Amino acid sequence: MSAPVNPQVQTSAAAAPSATSPTPLRVALLGCGVVGSSVARLLLSNREALAARVGRPLELAGVAVRRLGRDRADLPAHLFTTDAEELVTRADVVVEVIGGIEPARSLILRAIEHGASVVTANKALLAEDGPTLYAAADAAGVDLYYEASVAGAIPLLRPIRESLAGDDVRRVLGIVNGTTNYVLDKMDSTGAGFSEAVAQAQALGYAEADPTADVEGFDAAAKAAILASLGFHTRVRAADVHREGITEVSAADVAAAAEMGCVVKLLAICELATDPESGAAGVSVRVHPAMIPRTHPLAGVREAFNAVFVEADAAGQLMFYGPGAGGDPTASAVLGDVVAVARHRVVGGLGPRESAYAELPVFPMGRAVTRYYISLDVADRPGVLAAVATVFADHGVSIQQVRQVVHETDPDREGTRSPGAELIIVTHAAPDAALSATVGALANLDAVRGVTSVMRVEGD
Amino acid sequence: MSAPVNPQVQTSAAAAPSATSPTPLRVALLGCGVVGSSVARLLLSNREALAARVGRPLELAGVAVRRLGRDRADLPAHLFTTDAEELVTRADVVVEVIGGIEPARSLILRAIEHGASVVTANKALLAEDGPTLYAAADAAGVDLYYEASVAGAIPLLRPIRESLAGDDVRRVLGIVNGTTNYVLDKMDSTGAGFSEAVAQAQALGYAEADPTADVEGFDAAAKAAILASLGFHTRVRAADVHREGITEVSAADVAAAAEMGCVVKLLAICELATDPESGAAGVSVRVHPAMIPRTHPLAGVREAFNAVFVEADAAGQLMFYGPGAGGDPTASAVLGDVVAVARHRVVGGLGPRESAYAELPVFPMGRAVTRYYISLDVADRPGVLAAVATVFADHGVSIQQVRQVVHETDPDREGTRSPGAELIIVTHAAPDAALSATVGALANLDAVRGVTSVMRVEGD
Repeated sequence: MSAPVNPQVQTSAAAAPSATSPTPLRVALLGCGVVGSSVARLLLSNREALAARVGRPLELAGVAVRRLGRDRADLPAHLFTTDAEELVTRADVVVEVIGGIEPARSLILRAIEHGASVVTANKALLAEDGPTLYAAADAAGVDLYYEASVAGAIPLLRPIRESLAGDDVRRVLGIVNGTTNYVLDKMDSTGAGFSEAVAQAQALGYAEADPTADVEGFDAAAKAAILASLGFHTRVRAADVHREGITEVSAADVAAAAEMGCVVKLLAICELATDPESGAAGVSVRVHPAMIPRTHPLAGVREAFNAVFVEADAAGQLMFYGPGAGGDPTASAVLGDVVAVARHRVVGGLGPRESAYAELPVFPMGRAVTRYYISLDVADRPGVLAAVATVFADHGVSIQQVRQVVHETDPDREGTRSPGAELIIVTHAAPDAALSATVGALANLDAVRGVTSVMRVEGD
Repeated sequence: MSAPVNPQVQTSAAAAPSATSPTPLRVALLGCGVVGSSVARLLLSNREALAARVGRPLELAGVAVRRLGRDRADLPAHLFTTDAEELVTRADVVVEVIGGIEPARSLILRAIEHGASVVTANKALLAEDGPTLYAAADAAGVDLYYEASVAGAIPLLRPIRESLAGDDVRRVLGIVNGTTNYVLDKMDSTGAGFSEAVAQAQALGYAEADPTADVEGFDAAAKAAILASLGFHTRVRAADVHREGITEVSAADVAAAAEMGCVVKLLAICELATDPESGAAGVSVRVHPAMIPRTHPLAGVREAFNAVFVEADAAGQLMFYGPGAGGDPTASAVLGDVVAVARHRVVGGLGPRESAYAELPVFPMGRAVTRYYISLDVADRPGVLAAVATVFADHGVSIQQVRQVVHETDPDREGTRSPGAELIIVTHAAPDAALSATVGALANLDAVRGVTSVMRVEGD
């Protein structure tokens, strides 16, 4: 670690590259994909400004890749190495943008052991095993920053962790996965089905060849875990997050939402909650598609953009909006962290940590309070609505609105059936367990021929 | 207060109050108005969480007020003092929410001399004489934080200063004054005139009895100076900011904007710019009312809310939205800073400073590139449009759209006049000096009976 500079000249050292401390800080880059190559390019092209902001020049010490020989980002060939384990031992700051659990975790731990500060964009690793990394960084007295792991370029983790450090976060609600937002936006604006919209997203580079991590909600769940951990000072892992993806969202669901003046979005929702029985505090963390009113600001978030609402006791409702992914935007967030941790090496100090003092329990999904949209295929005969309404009442769920659409019988599709109707019900807020049990009981009613669609409704 | 010292969780040194360092940090509060009393209340009511986040308890050491004896925020009477000069000498952290230049400046300098870190919400002081305070804090090796000085609860300065520290900010554009936004929003939604809307705002507590600082743009100009300084690493003072308030905005202007699918907002605009002649880089910083399209996200910012766009090279366009004023929201920002500077006292280090290494020149308003909306009262006769268009061409300003509305002559008002028409022109982007000269030349045209309205158009 660098020796602290004379306190008298600290600021001038920080404000401009000083002749008395020209030794560069060595930055090692692990991974050179879309984000990594942007990070490298910005490190090199923005050299003078970064030096002025850090107080010492930043030198790209090397780039670890799996295979040499590919032409990457116009970087000098001598910077590349396949020996990441060696590279991390000769860096002051290690930037990890490989992704995934291994070898990322081992390399980060090795970097920390060798005294490097670490900047990572690895949401999966943080949400799976963050505490191991935090403990290692604490023990070594180095920084571990990860702004780029959630919502790309949008400053979100720093505001929650630092700007709101004197406040109490009550709720974080947002669109944190650009791929699924792109897919749902296309379904909404063009009437396309899920598969068609995914194919479009893949063609345009918004979705991976294997889109599972995005469309099944794994990516959003990892981000929700990170947001909930910081917001509620409680360790929440990806496995604690209730997760539903968008693969079951049909063109009919999107059309039904539109008829209701709503749009379907994949939401990450982190809430402070109270156990209805014990009254104890806890947190609810979930990722699922939901209908939100078109008048809600999140409804206007198009294409692959991200937007997150943060609600705090004193601050009220804040919103953060911007590009949630992409090489340059993510690299912007990575470099902000690089400047912060590098600056700590020049002027001393360590950034604020994740803190877990609150240790709140994570409630199961059944206790989350939400609203349901339910569409039922029912027999068109007297008494059906009464029977349906009784099921809701029995489960303590109150109905906000109900709408019945009588279908002409379609001789091709349901020639043998008696005339039917569609019953569309939107509930008031209730625990998810009660809502889910209601749907189960409705499916068993004689008069109900099928539950056509169920979706949560959020954003009031 | 609980003291769970668990060696497993090494973070707890910083994350939880430790039995080995129970000495509280003393916080002195200067001012106990709307913001001050919220700060005091939150400090006391949130004591345990704050202690956990700082690593040591925060103790409210005293509250300096001008006069004793008023009942304030249910605080114990012994906390109050009229001797602010003495109070700042016995504090670790001084929170200044008096506002104005003096005595705030002297008290902050005295606090710094005595080794206290300072948190202030004082935009006027920072924009007038920030460098004196920054230099004093540097010399003393203490922190000076001021997130609450711009846009209330919205985390904005920390994101610009820290999250975007590895990027290059190109533009900051936003609504940073809640009072004027409330007034303009009422004018837009109810058709009210300026005075009527101000009276409404005063009745509801959104405007002061003397609304000058808000409606003349002084408040927004101070905030623009702070934003430009941080964004462009260049010292910009309030006096450098081109400032126009909203007192000249008429109901007719607002109606004309509506007809064009626009809304009038008071904008703070900070831009990196290039001198058209020398090609040298500089900054343009200005506050003025402008028409923006109703489809622009800033157009939807209602009542007293604030919203700010930040555009950076790599990050792209980010937006921050939330309550820009009010006791609790502003106190949230103040307390976030208090936690940050208090934590530095516990674990060491200093926060990042304003930096002025770029030292860019601040360009005069004439060089700002903008668009004009111009409404002319013209004689209704052939050749008028040609004469008008020639004036634009002579000044190198190109016209984006022109619309002519023929008026029936109003015998009561202009009985002696010949029949007239209204010519509405929206220009393409051009330097403000050229646009302004064009308006001057138009006023001198024979065919032009008067320039009815001129307003800038932004937000494309």
